[in-house]
Amino acid sequence: MSWREDAKHRASVEAARLVEDDQIVGLGSGSTMYYLIEELGRRIREEELRICCIPTSKQTESQARKHKIKLTTLDKHPQIDIAIDGADQVDSNLNLIKGKGGALTREKIVDSIARFLIIVVDETKLTDHLGLMQPVPIEVMPFALKPVMNRIKKMGGEPVIRFATKTASPSSTEQYFTTDNGNIIIDAEFGTIKAPKKMEMELKMIPGVIENGLFVNMAHRVYVGMKSGAIKTVNKEEAFLQ
Amino acid sequence: MSWREDAKHRASVEAARLVEDDQIVGLGSGSTMYYLIEELGRRIREEELRICCIPTSKQTESQARKHKIKLTTLDKHPQIDIAIDGADQVDSNLNLIKGKGGALTREKIVDSIARFLIIVVDETKLTDHLGLMQPVPIEVMPFALKPVMNRIKKMGGEPVIRFATKTASPSSTEQYFTTDNGNIIIDAEFGTIKAPKKMEMELKMIPGVIENGLFVNMAHRVYVGMKSGAIKTVNKEEAFLQ
Repeated sequence: MSWREDAKHRASVEAARLVEDDQIVGLGSGSTMYYLIEELGRRIREEELRICCIPTSKQTESQARKHKIKLTTLDKHPQIDIAIDGADQVDSNLNLIKGKGGALTREKIVDSIARFLIIVVDETKLTDHLGLMQPVPIEVMPFALKPVMNRIKKMGGEPVIRFATKTASPSSTEQYFTTDNGNIIIDAEFGTIKAPKKMEMELKMIPGVIENGLFVNMAHRVYVGMKSGAIKTVNKEEAFLQ
Repeated sequence: MSWREDAKHRASVEAARLVEDDQIVGLGSGSTMYYLIEELGRRIREEELRICCIPTSKQTESQARKHKIKLTTLDKHPQIDIAIDGADQVDSNLNLIKGKGGALTREKIVDSIARFLIIVVDETKLTDHLGLMQPVPIEVMPFALKPVMNRIKKMGGEPVIRFATKTASPSSTEQYFTTDNGNIIIDAEFGTIKAPKKMEMELKMIPGVIENGLFVNMAHRVYVGMKSGAIKTVNKEEAFLQ
């Protein structure tokens, strides 16, 4: 196991300890969630933890089922006690870029209503400057693809349509990556993002944009798996990087 | 024909006169568009008008095909010369509430990029106060329905889920009205809306909201079919109601 996988694993186990009996738990998507779901499954099996989870993707849902985790929906439980999720980039204010796995919209729906949002990453995800070497994923209605790309260019961004496979021919629309909601992802490179909240709003306001991967003022705590083997806990109030 | 149908008909004919050869034309949706499409079809047939249109709903698309109107997409033509659309309510600043037909998202995508946006209504749609006796339609991802309704209530609105048929049982989720994009419509009653731009932004920023029916600072001209038989033309700069 590489140090990064090991770091994500240990940080996920740490995050899973926060979950308590009778809670409604939001489950993010992506590689880090693999370890979290595994650990929640273990606690349910071995410690008789009683929880109900809301998955943010088909992948997370099927993984949770495998571990016999009880699932529910926002229709039945529109309030979430705690959500645990990964991130592609985390800055010193605990603002995030998310969406590499393409589940950003359901993640933002769940994460935004969680009373407590916990993020789990390895230390390579920490940054002083959100956006540096990290595009912002944007979920877009297929009908609006071209006008949205034009708007992103006007904002100074470089929009790239995400493909389902790396070998896909750029000329074929059929191989665009499709979200669980039937939409397309644009990865927009902006360079350093100086005002993340402003950009989050500007992107969401574009007609045809469903959601974007900037999660500003949402996370309450981040568990960072370090290369050293330590786990760093950062709460919203603290400074993140010295 | 009722005076309102007659008024919409005549105002639509007036609006259709603006369309010129070789233009890319955005076509709204709803009952007023019926007359507009009919008139554009007549001009194509009788005057050899050469245009390419982008429809905002399946209904408009099939109507346009019936009249042998050449269609295109935003992928091929991401710039629109003129868009013509209806509205549910129009205030003195030419701000609109739209979405009674459920096509608000595609309409906003098309209307927002049109160089010139023309609205056609009968005089019953004019109002001093946007929102008075007129709910704001909001397109919502089914996954987020309950949390979005809770957020609307916190904003002081009364959210009502739109049903596909009037006889539908309120307990069955299967009879919810479904948009062309596979989403649900919430009609939210706010009463008089004092700051439409602020509300448009607040609604769109809710995670799970695809779009809302407030169209602020978008329309350039409104043709109003009056009960008297006259057609009133109002441009963006003028005061609307004396």
